[in-house]
This record gives sequence, structure tokens and C-alpha cells, in this order.
Amino acid sequence: MEPITSLQNPRIKDLVRLRNRRDRDQSKTFLIEGFRELIRAADAGLDFTDVYYAPDLYLGDNEPALVERLISLGARATKLGNDAFRKVAYRDRPEGVLAVANQFDTSLDDLVLADDPLLLVVESIENPGNLGTMLRTADAANVAGVIVCDPTTDPFNPNTVRASIGSLFTVPLAVTATQRAIKWLGDQNVKTVATSPDADRMHWQASYRGAMAIVIGSEQHGLSSAWLTNSTESVQIPMSGTADSLNAAVAAGVMLFEATRQRSG
Amino acid sequence: MEPITSLQNPRIKDLVRLRNRRDRDQSKTFLIEGFRELIRAADAGLDFTDVYYAPDLYLGDNEPALVERLISLGARATKLGNDAFRKVAYRDRPEGVLAVANQFDTSLDDLVLADDPLLLVVESIENPGNLGTMLRTADAANVAGVIVCDPTTDPFNPNTVRASIGSLFTVPLAVTATQRAIKWLGDQNVKTVATSPDADRMHWQASYRGAMAIVIGSEQHGLSSAWLTNSTESVQIPMSGTADSLNAAVAAGVMLFEATRQRSG
Repeated sequence: MEPITSLQNPRIKDLVRLRNRRDRDQSKTFLIEGFRELIRAADAGLDFTDVYYAPDLYLGDNEPALVERLISLGARATKLGNDAFRKVAYRDRPEGVLAVANQFDTSLDDLVLADDPLLLVVESIENPGNLGTMLRTADAANVAGVIVCDPTTDPFNPNTVRASIGSLFTVPLAVTATQRAIKWLGDQNVKTVATSPDADRMHWQASYRGAMAIVIGSEQHGLSSAWLTNSTESVQIPMSGTADSLNAAVAAGVMLFEATRQRSG
Repeated sequence: MEPITSLQNPRIKDLVRLRNRRDRDQSKTFLIEGFRELIRAADAGLDFTDVYYAPDLYLGDNEPALVERLISLGARATKLGNDAFRKVAYRDRPEGVLAVANQFDTSLDDLVLADDPLLLVVESIENPGNLGTMLRTADAANVAGVIVCDPTTDPFNPNTVRASIGSLFTVPLAVTATQRAIKWLGDQNVKTVATSPDADRMHWQASYRGAMAIVIGSEQHGLSSAWLTNSTESVQIPMSGTADSLNAAVAAGVMLFEATRQRSG
């Protein structure tokens, strides 16, 4: 088969369109780019529809085996010319392999909790990269799951996939409405600790033992009143310089590793 | 004066060129965009050369006063057409005000330490946004200074300015070579805690009291052997999920706020 070289080819245009949420929502598919990310996606059993490859752009020797593996998992393989690949790639330095996979289910009912789970809840996160970094951080802290409430960015955004470095495929993930998450966590007897700049207690003064969820709001608006009213307790990460807030993913990291510290002892 | 509307105007081209490190290094100037960032830069006493403004793009009512203030601080004011402004802006949603300022001095000799300072040292950070987020986090943790060693990105990169949300202008900042930083910290009797995935102790098992520096390496390569050999001690942030590393700015946040917790007691 000849590689696709025309930037006007309809399949090239369809791939570029998958950067838009509307097109992802309609097709129920999403893009995964990068060697490491695709290995993790394959390990996690994702349902691939297509793999696109451009051998001239490979950085190492293992890409052909990865493409073969994705084909064996059901992906249709299509070779692209270098310019066509660069057009569909969303990285500055494309690695020559990009796949399309079906979106997986993220319903809250499928989130199964073991004893004394640690959860991360995030509300209305706007920045896709921040959401991906939070998934990566939550994975490193070995959370039982991440609940994404009232999202303004979907977790299948290419920048979320990239920043998560594959943690999107390994961390149990649910997307739901805030009110439903509050009810579900209450039903499961999971304690919630909300972060708020107005809280009286410092974040290290709360206990993170037992079944509990750390709740982080958006950078722009913080947490909604529903969370502030209904959480078991609220804490602040103390801001003592001239900066009056932390990046939301940094705040999630500070909270999750305070919980890790307390739970390790 | 008529606004500049031509995208081919030499001054427009010069502004776009300031996104490149070489042009910043040559001109010893850099770009600052955004209302909040410019307020903080003005408060910090930066030396502005120019302010460019496009009133149609203002988001609020306070931009004219900001432009006046920058003029009073010595900036030459130039009005731009909307398309010309969008070309020079590096944000997706430009706010209609952008300034050029002279780079400030970042020599280590100018870093003055009070008693028992907490410092952040970062080595060979590649991602400008990560460097900016680290400056913002260090500011929030009220560090005495940030020492940027062997940088592969300069702190005047537009994405560093943006991610720092103005903390670039408020946190005492030094840029130097690793060997020089090690010697300087030793001369000042500042203890160093290096982060390494191979360390035996968990990050909360070290003491962060007294004069001390937290040392964070690049995401891709970690810390150089110079830091690992010469630091007072090494700790790891435990990775317990499938993710094998944290975003470097998240790691800095986890370390700085563990130090904050210990130093607050």
C-alpha cells in the first residue's frame, strides 16, 4: 500500500478533527500519540481502531513491534508520509506512531472500591494538561480512582492524554456531576476533604486515614458551594508568599502526598 | 498616532522574534503579557521599554490605567490593530496589553539570605511552563530564593512568565552552573536535600528545618551525579502506582510543602 501523503486526504482531515471535543464526542474515539503512551494503552487493553505510522520519524528500534502489536489488537494500519504525519501529530517532536482508540466507559457505577480507598475528586478543571498531570499524580499516589466532576474539558483531550503519560489508561476514572458524586461518596461512607483558601485548618491538620477523597476545585473558581457545604471537612494549603494560589495539579500533588505520608505510618 | 495594523511592520516582527531565546539573549529584553502579570511586574519595579495595547481586546475597565502606569514607568506606548496584537500575543485569548521589559540581573552573588532560609534549586529543567509553575509554587511556599542550575530554558521564556503568573518578578532568582551552586550553598552552610528515585529514605523522613535547599532534577534525566554526590542527603517521593515519576513542578510542590509543614511546627 502506498502511504497517504496528501494533507487534503479525508482521513488526515478526520484525524485533525479529533482534536475537537465535538468530533470526539460524536465518534466516541480519541487520539493516542507517543511510544510510551501507546505501550501503556495496549497494556491496559484499550480498543484500538487505527494505527498510523511514519517510519522515518521513529526515534528508536521498537516502533515496528509496537505497530505490529496494535495490529494484533485489532487496529487497521495506515502508513503516512512524513508531512502527513506531522499534520496529524499534536506533539512538536512527533515519534511516528499515532493511534485512534474507542473511548472507554467512565461511569461512576463501574468504580469499584476496595477497603479504605483513597480517591481524588476534581471539579470543573479547565486546562486539559492540568487534568492529565492530576491523573499522573493520582496514579503515582496509588489512588483507588479519580472522579472528574462537571468537566469543562473531557479526559480524552489529546493534551490530557499526553500530560497523563498513559495514567489515563491505568487509573480507575469516573466522569459525573458534582451532586451525583457527593451522593455516591456519602453512600459509600467515604470521607471528603475539600481544599479552600478560606478554610481554618492547614492541610496537614486533617486526617487522611480510612476511606477518603481529596477534593480539588478549578484554578479560576475554586470549589463550588456544593462541595464546600457537603464535605466532611475543609483545609487550606497555606500560601505565604506573594502568590495567592497554586497550580491545581500542584495542589493535588501536595494533598495526595500528605495523605500518602499519613497513610504510610 | 495611527495604530500599527500591518503584520509586516518591523516592530511586529521584532516582538514575535522575542519568543526565541537567541533574540531575547541578544536584546536582553523579554515579553510580559496579561493584566495580572503586568501589575505584578510593575509592583516589582521592572524596567519597561515598551507597552503595546489593543483596546478592543480589553477584558475589563482597568487596562487604560495599567497602560498609563507603564508609561509613567518609562514605557513607550504603541497602539496595535486587533490582528497585529493577536499576532504578537502568545496567549490563545489575548487581553490587549503586552509589554517589553529589560531582563533583570540573576547572578547568584546578588542572592541575599536571611536566617534559616528555605531555597529551591532546580537543575536542567527543559519545559518552560514547568519552570514557571515551580517559581509560582516556590513563591507560595515563601522561599528565600530559587536557584536555576544549568538551564536548558531561560526564565524569560514567555511560557515561563505566563506559568509563573508574575512570581518570576517577586521570587529572588539566580541562574548559575551546578558546580557553582554547590560551592555557594556549602559556603553559606545551607543543607541540601536531593530528590532521587533511588534514595532509601522517603521524602518525609528528612528534616527540613534550618538553612536548607530542596534540589529537583529534570524530568527526563533526574539530577546529575554532582548533586547526588554532594547533597547532604537524598530522598525519594514514593511512587506506588503504575506511574513511575511525577511532573517536576508537582514534585517541587510536594517537597516544598512537606518543608512548610515541618517548619511551621
